[in-house]
Amino acid sequence: MSARKPKVTVLGGGTWGTTVASITARKTQTLLWVRDPDIAKAINENHRNPRYLAGFDLTAGLRATADLAEAVGDADVLVAGVPSQYLRGVLEQTVAHVRPFIPVVSLVKGLERGTRKRMTEVIGEVLPGHPAGVLSGPNIAHEVVQGYSAAATLAMPDHRTAQSLQSLVHTSRYRVYTSEDVVGVEIAGALKNVFAIAVGFGDGLGAGDNTRAMVITRSLHELTRLGVAMGGRAETLAGLAGMGDLVVTCISPHSRNRRVGFELGRGKPLEEILASMHQVAEGVATTTAVIRLAAERGIEMPIAREVDAVLNHRQPVEETYRGLLRVTPGHEVDGEAW
Amino acid sequence: MSARKPKVTVLGGGTWGTTVASITARKTQTLLWVRDPDIAKAINENHRNPRYLAGFDLTAGLRATADLAEAVGDADVLVAGVPSQYLRGVLEQTVAHVRPFIPVVSLVKGLERGTRKRMTEVIGEVLPGHPAGVLSGPNIAHEVVQGYSAAATLAMPDHRTAQSLQSLVHTSRYRVYTSEDVVGVEIAGALKNVFAIAVGFGDGLGAGDNTRAMVITRSLHELTRLGVAMGGRAETLAGLAGMGDLVVTCISPHSRNRRVGFELGRGKPLEEILASMHQVAEGVATTTAVIRLAAERGIEMPIAREVDAVLNHRQPVEETYRGLLRVTPGHEVDGEAW
Repeated sequence: MSARKPKVTVLGGGTWGTTVASITARKTQTLLWVRDPDIAKAINENHRNPRYLAGFDLTAGLRATADLAEAVGDADVLVAGVPSQYLRGVLEQTVAHVRPFIPVVSLVKGLERGTRKRMTEVIGEVLPGHPAGVLSGPNIAHEVVQGYSAAATLAMPDHRTAQSLQSLVHTSRYRVYTSEDVVGVEIAGALKNVFAIAVGFGDGLGAGDNTRAMVITRSLHELTRLGVAMGGRAETLAGLAGMGDLVVTCISPHSRNRRVGFELGRGKPLEEILASMHQVAEGVATTTAVIRLAAERGIEMPIAREVDAVLNHRQPVEETYRGLLRVTPGHEVDGEAW
Repeated sequence: MSARKPKVTVLGGGTWGTTVASITARKTQTLLWVRDPDIAKAINENHRNPRYLAGFDLTAGLRATADLAEAVGDADVLVAGVPSQYLRGVLEQTVAHVRPFIPVVSLVKGLERGTRKRMTEVIGEVLPGHPAGVLSGPNIAHEVVQGYSAAATLAMPDHRTAQSLQSLVHTSRYRVYTSEDVVGVEIAGALKNVFAIAVGFGDGLGAGDNTRAMVITRSLHELTRLGVAMGGRAETLAGLAGMGDLVVTCISPHSRNRRVGFELGRGKPLEEILASMHQVAEGVATTTAVIRLAAERGIEMPIAREVDAVLNHRQPVEETYRGLLRVTPGHEVDGEAW
């Protein structure tokens, strides 16, 4: 990398966007774009994000703005932390202002519902010619911002770009590994949210840890099946961004997607659950896209299908979970276990 | 299977042996051998195991005895639920009494320390000519005995034997899949206890869920590496008996091995922890065997090595965990992550 330190702009002041901006601000000049000017002001004046990370001190050098053109105009690296269904719209507003060639790193774990595109595909369409990659791993934001150790995978199509970017985000407590498997990392991040909803069903219905571990295990099979069919590498899906993120999302009390499933399992209607949440549970919109992607490729995804049935076709959760658990047992590998 | 229902004898009245015996007693005549005549009496009279499953009702038809010759003499199937370091000794006392050819199913998740043998190898040496297999999966006993749903893999060298045995243990809430990969199932069951100790270290030291998920993920890599080198199949290690059991052992509050690691992380001496436990934590003895097996095959097992350093070489837990977390990050797949 050149001696001149790259300026980073993070788009999106949600929990995770804010956390990543607070990390890169320790390494290099960082600007966070947030929609709400009051939050920008709070970050600049008090080094706090009162809406999404109330109570946590951010890096003092982190600056924030609600002006999108100003935010991206001087950036050498763009980091996208906007929910999947809004990313295209936000990026479109940046087109006239973004410097050519600069890399764009997605933090977003979802698929665009209508197009079923991955976020780097959306970036490629709106900002063609920019190298687009993804940072993902078992990274519950509340733990990372408090300084608990965690690790992640940074995937870029060109390994040299990944290595340069790695130095901007890697710290002694947030360890970042590099990869070129953008597709694998991205698919894993999107799908794990769907499976976290399935695990939440069980937790809400009062299933135990044995069942939870079983559903996590079978979920990794489904995730790997689709990920590999879409061009991801099996070892990526078995790594931090795949299995690692799936496991933490399925066990952490902070997972929004697991919570959606949990509340559904307890009998709360979906609309009420979503209305009560501060932030987007990516798995809800992503489930629709996943089902279509799997169907297009002729891939069996029984767990994702049950999640879809509950979210989109009003199937009772109890019935779904019985469906997942009630099968004629056969050979574990040769017979489809469920 | 013939019309005559097989009689099952379970050796070992610990938590899991008792639970499995209580399941098979619902399907067929079952006798449980326990060392302590008082426990045998309590099971026969009150359908309770006051020592290991206090408060839980066992199947009323389950009979128990403390007479080993009587226990095995009439058995058509032997199920071994004795801790790994004692199995050989118990089996040796049965040699003169066991009917020839009957299958022997191990429930034991450990390796014999001195010989580094798997339990079916021990069975093969003491009871040659008997088909030997293993039943294993994410099966926290306290949940299974309470009727929470769970699943497991039953591996026998001959698939037909596995299918016949499956019907003796499969219920609507305890679903049993078959496999021929005895080595893979057995290695996974033994190794997961070692890694549960490593996860316990982190929990005891106050690490978060992100780190826990990361250690579980890297542990599955190590487990798979050794399991495949020993002849197990990768898909077994990614299945219920591998990943499934690893995950539940690393997240359940009931896991004895995780608890050993947790208490070590909190600063308690190993001797004191082991003295305070009712039952054997298999991972402690198995770690020594695992380290030797890996060394013989030139396989890197950095997590298992750190567990060994703490258990057997008085390395402080803090140092170990820092060692696991402090690495120069590189490529996730090509570079050894740790």
